Amino acid sequence: MFITLEGPEGSGKTTVSNIIANRLEKLGYKVIQTREPGGTPIAEAIRNIILDKKNTNLDPRAEALLYAASRRQHLIEKIWPAIHEGKIVICDRYLDSSLAYQGGARNLGVDNVLSINMFATEGTLPDLTLLFDIAPEIGLSRINANSNREVNRLDLEKLDFHKKVRETFLNLAKQNPNRYVVINADNTLEEVVEMAWNEIKKKLGF
Amino acid sequence: MFITLEGPEGSGKTTVSNIIANRLEKLGYKVIQTREPGGTPIAEAIRNIILDKKNTNLDPRAEALLYAASRRQHLIEKIWPAIHEGKIVICDRYLDSSLAYQGGARNLGVDNVLSINMFATEGTLPDLTLLFDIAPEIGLSRINANSNREVNRLDLEKLDFHKKVRETFLNLAKQNPNRYVVINADNTLEEVVEMAWNEIKKKLGF
Repeated sequence: MFITLEGPEGSGKTTVSNIIANRLEKLGYKVIQTREPGGTPIAEAIRNIILDKKNTNLDPRAEALLYAASRRQHLIEKIWPAIHEGKIVICDRYLDSSLAYQGGARNLGVDNVLSINMFATEGTLPDLTLLFDIAPEIGLSRINANSNREVNRLDLEKLDFHKKVRETFLNLAKQNPNRYVVINADNTLEEVVEMAWNEIKKKLGF
Repeated sequence: MFITLEGPEGSGKTTVSNIIANRLEKLGYKVIQTREPGGTPIAEAIRNIILDKKNTNLDPRAEALLYAASRRQHLIEKIWPAIHEGKIVICDRYLDSSLAYQGGARNLGVDNVLSINMFATEGTLPDLTLLFDIAPEIGLSRINANSNREVNRLDLEKLDFHKKVRETFLNLAKQNPNRYVVINADNTLEEVVEMAWNEIKKKLGF
């Protein structure tokens, strides 16, 4: 079982992931929580190039290819082995993030970015994608209120960029109803956790 | 004018490139000779990951994506600007090498590798591709005879691998007669230079 969590920073993904992993483990499931590059040395090295502040002239297409390469290595070294061992994999962001951020918001085209990611993943799609949907204004204000959290390059993009990200995610959810569930993340954390938990229970059949 | 030189190591590409660049400059053309990563810092950093001997578990698909990312950055920072300035660009290996080595010899599929490279290059193909064709046995024996040359990871692949590379290159030449010219590199260097020079003269129209 391969579950991905998508949505902007400030949407509660990480907290929900921790609580759900905990509950699943208590029920006897083996769970791994991960996110790219996931501690795999090659994927880390690739990420360092993407995140290096010296690399201001990194082209968006090169960036998309580097994300896909890092994703491939994370998939091969971490996700596939865990799935093979019968574990539930909960992954914070996966290919849909590339579709939304680079395909949609950076205007590279969702289909173009999907195509390189299908090459990278050999078509490995999540069984369930929970989209934590929230208006960018609210997500961003939550991030700004959280002084412990480091602001990253994408947080600094303009509001329009984040609106395009949201719009692309919602379109993807519409086009992929079999694996996508939209969670209204503009609720209390308790409510968001319960909504996510219900969807996972449904998928696991209990 | 964008010219690429393809073919195995030991086929004389580099020597021919130097002689031809020299002749073109004497005729008043502005020429740059380059090869990926071409001294562009981001492309260099990407290449370091590919070539790092620690990274023995680098997956072939991740490798193909990294080559495409490095190619993109080299194209953006070096090839496009030179073409814009009206220079003749002579590039030692380009996208066709990925098609032959990774698409063909590593069995990722030529079309799959072409597709990620079309994303990377936005369809920027060479005006002329000179394929220096030679039986792998001869190319390899030339490399081994040249003690100054460092043996790289690809040289060490088995003969079958190099045969597949050659076969894929020859198929590409057949499928792309408008830009491909096959040069029989199993001739004296002088003959190979003259064959290459004739093709370039034809393309430049003098």
